[in-house]
Amino acid sequence: MRSSSYLFIALLIGIFIGAGGALLISGSTYPDHVSPDREIIFQVSTIDALLESVYDGVMPVSELTRYGDLGIGTFDSLDGELIMVDGVVYQARADGSVVVAAHNLKVPLAAVTFFDEDIIIPDLSTRGFAEFEDSIGGAIRSENLKYAIRIDGTFPEVTVRAPHGQERPYPRLVDALADQYMATHTNITGTAVGFLLPEYVGGLNVPGYHLHFISDDLSVGGHIVDFSLDSATVSLDETLTFMMRLPSEGGFIDADLTRDLSDELAFVERPGQD
Amino acid sequence: MRSSSYLFIALLIGIFIGAGGALLISGSTYPDHVSPDREIIFQVSTIDALLESVYDGVMPVSELTRYGDLGIGTFDSLDGELIMVDGVVYQARADGSVVVAAHNLKVPLAAVTFFDEDIIIPDLSTRGFAEFEDSIGGAIRSENLKYAIRIDGTFPEVTVRAPHGQERPYPRLVDALADQYMATHTNITGTAVGFLLPEYVGGLNVPGYHLHFISDDLSVGGHIVDFSLDSATVSLDETLTFMMRLPSEGGFIDADLTRDLSDELAFVERPGQD
Repeated sequence: MRSSSYLFIALLIGIFIGAGGALLISGSTYPDHVSPDREIIFQVSTIDALLESVYDGVMPVSELTRYGDLGIGTFDSLDGELIMVDGVVYQARADGSVVVAAHNLKVPLAAVTFFDEDIIIPDLSTRGFAEFEDSIGGAIRSENLKYAIRIDGTFPEVTVRAPHGQERPYPRLVDALADQYMATHTNITGTAVGFLLPEYVGGLNVPGYHLHFISDDLSVGGHIVDFSLDSATVSLDETLTFMMRLPSEGGFIDADLTRDLSDELAFVERPGQD
Repeated sequence: MRSSSYLFIALLIGIFIGAGGALLISGSTYPDHVSPDREIIFQVSTIDALLESVYDGVMPVSELTRYGDLGIGTFDSLDGELIMVDGVVYQARADGSVVVAAHNLKVPLAAVTFFDEDIIIPDLSTRGFAEFEDSIGGAIRSENLKYAIRIDGTFPEVTVRAPHGQERPYPRLVDALADQYMATHTNITGTAVGFLLPEYVGGLNVPGYHLHFISDDLSVGGHIVDFSLDSATVSLDETLTFMMRLPSEGGFIDADLTRDLSDELAFVERPGQD
């Protein structure tokens, strides 16, 4: 082999090393200038669209996981509650079962983020959702910012629910939830994930607290209606950037999204409490 | 020089070529999986914060231009209207002047996008904002989606305004605008840019139409109160993703953002018309 060939091979090797290194640096989910620290809450569709019976899945689970490792949502046709913990997406269904969601299952609504704890409240014991809210309210620096929440520990009591998959023509959410699964579990260890969002997200997402639960043994999960904590660890991720992807097809396009559905939302999120 | 040195130099050159090429491919403002076609409306802060007198600039013009080449907004202390056209940021001030905004000037509120026309309405003549709205309303496929707007051509009449920079303690927006600059110009050629947004963005941004104007000779600019068109070209960019960066400091943190300010917004946006 001539020495010019060696030069050419060295050049090629260099190109591969350079390209690989550059892509390694720039290949994070979001580029540095968009979010140096993954501080984006990414959302698919809007809560008002779900209230208006837009249950068409528009983004597969495999794509959703590119935007975060923790979050909540639901599935195509409203078939259960979505719980994303440590990058794994679980589906809590109305028969009480919990499964790892299929990668090609699509979500009509979800909100996720890459969770990096900014605030830790260790050893928190609370009775009921309201007492939990009081504890967190004193720990955050502004009700105008957005927080992802993660709770790990023992739940002396947790009431979860999960909706049945719906048949077309889809009923409105308030009607679809009438016969949903609901169960209260006691002394169960697990993780709750979700968000604390400002009032002004109304129409887009759920203002206030919105949490989903999954037990450590993966046997119990769903949307949290109420809960208590015994020496649990609560972590908060203050997140300044919000990103919302609207559906480009399906029921979203023609839904009536002009009405104020805040009362209906309060009822479906935590019946009897708001 | 020994041949091993040549090999080493060839390797180094290769690394540079490879790294440069890879960064060229991946170095767009947003990575492919976030937006293959730059379809993001990027916003700093919220309209309700501005209504509540949060005029602290939080992002310099030089950073804002990374997120779009067309858009609208205002400047620190409410010092004029921001008009971004073809990547250049103009400042229309209350003395009637228009200047290219300094790169280090910060914005308290702005919305921008990379404009890629999806819909073109050529040769549009309209009298008044309402007639314009009717024309556009028939051209879009859903009132639930978001559209960036660009209008180029002759404006037989355009009424623009621009607020004075404010002194601390900052008055509320509705009061700050009381003595703003306002002027009606006739038979002027120029460009209007802005957005048509769904009802559900209320609190975050301005539902409906929101346009700023700049004349071709750069002598006239501001927030459009009313306008007519003579054979103008209207371009729309349907944009599915919305991204909002909240201020991490300044007046935003402690502002009261829980009130419904929609009536106040309608009054300050287009007094006497809504």
